[in-house]
Amino acid sequence: MARRPTGGTEVFVAVLYSIIKPNNYQDSLRLMRLSNTLATADGVDRVSVMMGTQMNKDILRDAGLVTGDLDGATAADLMIFADVTNEDAGRALVAAVDLFLSQQAQRSATTKMPVVRSLEHALTVLGDANLAIVSVPGEYAAAEARRLLDRGINVFLFSDNVSVEDEIALKEQARDQGLLVMGPDCGTASICGIPLGFANAVADGNIGLVGASGTGLQEVMVQVDRLRGGVSHAIGLGGRDLSAPVGGLACTQALRALDADPGTDAIVLISKPPAPEVRARVLDLAAGLSKPVVAALLGERPERPGTGNVRYAGTLEDAARVAVELAGTHSRRVAAPGPGQHCIKALYTGGTFAAEAASLIAESLGVDVSSAHDDGYLLRADGHEVIDLGDDAYTRGRPHPMIDPSVRNDRVAAAIADPQTAVVVLDVVLGYGSHPDPASVLAPTVAKGLAGAHDAGRDVTVVASVCGTERDPQVLSVQTLALEQAGVVVMPSNSAAVRHALSILNRRPAPARVTSAAAGPIAQLLSQRPRIINVGLREFADALIEHDASVVQYDWSPVAGGDKRLQRLLDALR
Amino acid sequence: MARRPTGGTEVFVAVLYSIIKPNNYQDSLRLMRLSNTLATADGVDRVSVMMGTQMNKDILRDAGLVTGDLDGATAADLMIFADVTNEDAGRALVAAVDLFLSQQAQRSATTKMPVVRSLEHALTVLGDANLAIVSVPGEYAAAEARRLLDRGINVFLFSDNVSVEDEIALKEQARDQGLLVMGPDCGTASICGIPLGFANAVADGNIGLVGASGTGLQEVMVQVDRLRGGVSHAIGLGGRDLSAPVGGLACTQALRALDADPGTDAIVLISKPPAPEVRARVLDLAAGLSKPVVAALLGERPERPGTGNVRYAGTLEDAARVAVELAGTHSRRVAAPGPGQHCIKALYTGGTFAAEAASLIAESLGVDVSSAHDDGYLLRADGHEVIDLGDDAYTRGRPHPMIDPSVRNDRVAAAIADPQTAVVVLDVVLGYGSHPDPASVLAPTVAKGLAGAHDAGRDVTVVASVCGTERDPQVLSVQTLALEQAGVVVMPSNSAAVRHALSILNRRPAPARVTSAAAGPIAQLLSQRPRIINVGLREFADALIEHDASVVQYDWSPVAGGDKRLQRLLDALR
Repeated sequence: MARRPTGGTEVFVAVLYSIIKPNNYQDSLRLMRLSNTLATADGVDRVSVMMGTQMNKDILRDAGLVTGDLDGATAADLMIFADVTNEDAGRALVAAVDLFLSQQAQRSATTKMPVVRSLEHALTVLGDANLAIVSVPGEYAAAEARRLLDRGINVFLFSDNVSVEDEIALKEQARDQGLLVMGPDCGTASICGIPLGFANAVADGNIGLVGASGTGLQEVMVQVDRLRGGVSHAIGLGGRDLSAPVGGLACTQALRALDADPGTDAIVLISKPPAPEVRARVLDLAAGLSKPVVAALLGERPERPGTGNVRYAGTLEDAARVAVELAGTHSRRVAAPGPGQHCIKALYTGGTFAAEAASLIAESLGVDVSSAHDDGYLLRADGHEVIDLGDDAYTRGRPHPMIDPSVRNDRVAAAIADPQTAVVVLDVVLGYGSHPDPASVLAPTVAKGLAGAHDAGRDVTVVASVCGTERDPQVLSVQTLALEQAGVVVMPSNSAAVRHALSILNRRPAPARVTSAAAGPIAQLLSQRPRIINVGLREFADALIEHDASVVQYDWSPVAGGDKRLQRLLDALR
Repeated sequence: MARRPTGGTEVFVAVLYSIIKPNNYQDSLRLMRLSNTLATADGVDRVSVMMGTQMNKDILRDAGLVTGDLDGATAADLMIFADVTNEDAGRALVAAVDLFLSQQAQRSATTKMPVVRSLEHALTVLGDANLAIVSVPGEYAAAEARRLLDRGINVFLFSDNVSVEDEIALKEQARDQGLLVMGPDCGTASICGIPLGFANAVADGNIGLVGASGTGLQEVMVQVDRLRGGVSHAIGLGGRDLSAPVGGLACTQALRALDADPGTDAIVLISKPPAPEVRARVLDLAAGLSKPVVAALLGERPERPGTGNVRYAGTLEDAARVAVELAGTHSRRVAAPGPGQHCIKALYTGGTFAAEAASLIAESLGVDVSSAHDDGYLLRADGHEVIDLGDDAYTRGRPHPMIDPSVRNDRVAAAIADPQTAVVVLDVVLGYGSHPDPASVLAPTVAKGLAGAHDAGRDVTVVASVCGTERDPQVLSVQTLALEQAGVVVMPSNSAAVRHALSILNRRPAPARVTSAAAGPIAQLLSQRPRIINVGLREFADALIEHDASVVQYDWSPVAGGDKRLQRLLDALR
């Protein structure tokens, strides 16, 4: 509404535009983009952009933003309502809508991915499709999912506002066919490293996740990645899967599938508190699996760490930490030691770091901490060595290695060059009193050593923690960057660095993902990169293409103008 | 040794230089600098630089690097031994030594700090000195420390190679006088935020540390700082304090002093495994203190989390985490909520983050999690709110807030503007599917809101976690930086963000550090910025000056040319 002062009188003029674009279905993301574009145009006071569903029409009528008769608009019709300052602005608005839609059409035409407008066509393009992402509006989602299951295709059902009855029916059908339905309202999954829906770019690895919770899966994936672990699959269930009515139908399938998956060594189960009877059933199942399971049931504060192969975590971050401890580092980003490389060489300038490392390594590998501490050795067993170079044996008449880190360089070079070495662990201590730039002393030695090992056909990992802050004279981030550029893996604490070293030692080569067809469609799904039909939000396809997945885009729009009765009739006729 | 081919014959010529600079004491750091300078000079093959102590003379003789008679050299004489290619190189070496020493003398003359050459002179300059840093060679350290104790001065004894008998004698004398001896071989301490020895620049706060371990103290200080906690004092003990012979003499004093210190709310005790009888005595004492104690006894794997006010931590990082949980955020960097600001407003785009927050807040504050989840509220009690903005109630007909974070902006602005709000907690979810730049949407709203609250005289904290990786399309570090620049405190996980919010809520104003003289010299030491005599390594004074401490530099050199018998005689005469 524009306020136009004319002399002493004030006149208010409301110029309301209603624009209906018939048969012009736009997903929620494009609606938002169009809305943002129009809202910032000159002379536009208020604007609403939506599809002509019955619910939207009801809302609009209540808001009083509507001129003209909307009864004829269908769920496939695009509706724009605006309050503009004058008719020029209104005409500009109409032109802006047309421009947006034509640009959108051009943009679609330039992607290389095949785009179809029916499931049948999608299946002629990608005959061996075994997974579909469904993100159509909730009222149409169950029917689309059912059609996909009928064709033997696993479903990632992103759509929300699907009834619990539909969810149960879909999941029972899936179970009977040996297929998986992730969702409805499933925000996140990752299958063989291919992100589905909302998902983060994390390292491939050996931790399998099952979650009735989208951001719960994302947080555990991210935290696992930060701890240098990796993810085999993240299977979303939808938020209601562990409720009493649904009874953990998908959870049961997912846990069994990950237990059978040769690429998964540990499983994390993430959920808001499940229904008690479902909780008991799922945890009984977990306790019977062959692999360790970390259960993060948010809202339950674990009294005990768990029994047998099941451990409880109080937070998502804890769940990730325990999983990485159990599964080890298996990420493809992490170097795999060769068969002869079975030792950790830990060379410390700080005595307590050395003591902490010796204690963690001794406990993990079942060896003894040195009691004599001869020559600063805090541990010396099976080729593993933890040395405190600040020990009196090294500092008599010489500066402490925290003041002069160069006294460690020869030993670092020798440790990297030792053909038995898998991992070298170091500390870099910043702060007052310490060397003004310890990374500059250490980095060239590490870089040269790693290059030499690489030339000799060995992958050696050098892992360090930097004890310091941004306000220390040496500046934490500056030192960290210099070390990383030399090839050092920098961990956030000494204990994290040692645990990382231990996990590298325990790293086994990733098994090939081969599963016989006899194992069923879910095992097949987890054994090789999925072939995907993306039904709905085109943005989800971008991530698939980026990950070189086989994908066909099914540009869905409501059939029969969104008329439910007619749709049911068409469904019945198919 | 130079190899000089002359025709068909090969002739090897060794040109060895020995340079003695009488009465020219240099500390270990300067010896290293001189050594580095000479080692890179042209024509120098090998070089050794050291003081003329008996031990060094023995080592040199064994190494065969010596020409000439060393018997006359004393501990106050500088000795340089070099293997050079020819006599020109040798002459250049002599000149280089002279140049270094004259530059060193000039450099000393330019610092503003008062520099003296005797303890008596130091005390005329800084009559109320109550702390000394002693970093003279070990063989002279006990005598210096004793002289300081005799004058009622607490001692931070950095020197190593001090006998255990001397340690016990010093600590018993200190105990009887109510003074503290930190060390010998004490690498690290921090008293009232003043770093002593090797120490990091961390936030001032309410966690007091006691450690028989230098880098152990450093790691806990650094990890406390990373978790946004702060340190009141870090009291080093020296690595042998908890051994059977020393019996925890300094540890006992330090624990009692921190328990009495009004600026300390929780205590962390760090040690390699103590002698069993000392362990029992110290933990009995800890159990009787009025404040919580976190014991990180490295090498002991805690079976139980502890009893009463004593909790056990398995690693240094764990110790820091537990301490921050117990003590809360008390760092001066963190805003203190005003008396009317008593609420946490948590506004989430991710449902599981909201559930995790509701669970942690409910447990900590003893309120109930909402069971109805009306309008996405997962918790609503005493003004605290946890809302899941991805709830169906908010997404019908609209994009999910992870796709369009702007739908949260109005609520963020309202939450910051609410005079009851102490902390606003947010999630920012990166990854495929999410908004391409969520920080750009959120940051202006936060910056504007915080400015408004500040104008209204309120300090509101906005804390967030960013769920994402560096390889996500939005890039973790880019998003983090944009949020931090807008004034958001970014924590490494959602649970860390919620715990930080809870600790701000529990934050009390820091008490003034005032302790009556009647409480004794250690209480005095912890109650106000110490006045310090720095005996030895001048580099330690740099950090003191940077922290505006009152300091006098005592440029120590061995009296009587390092003759021990003569020194004892002089000691006796004083």
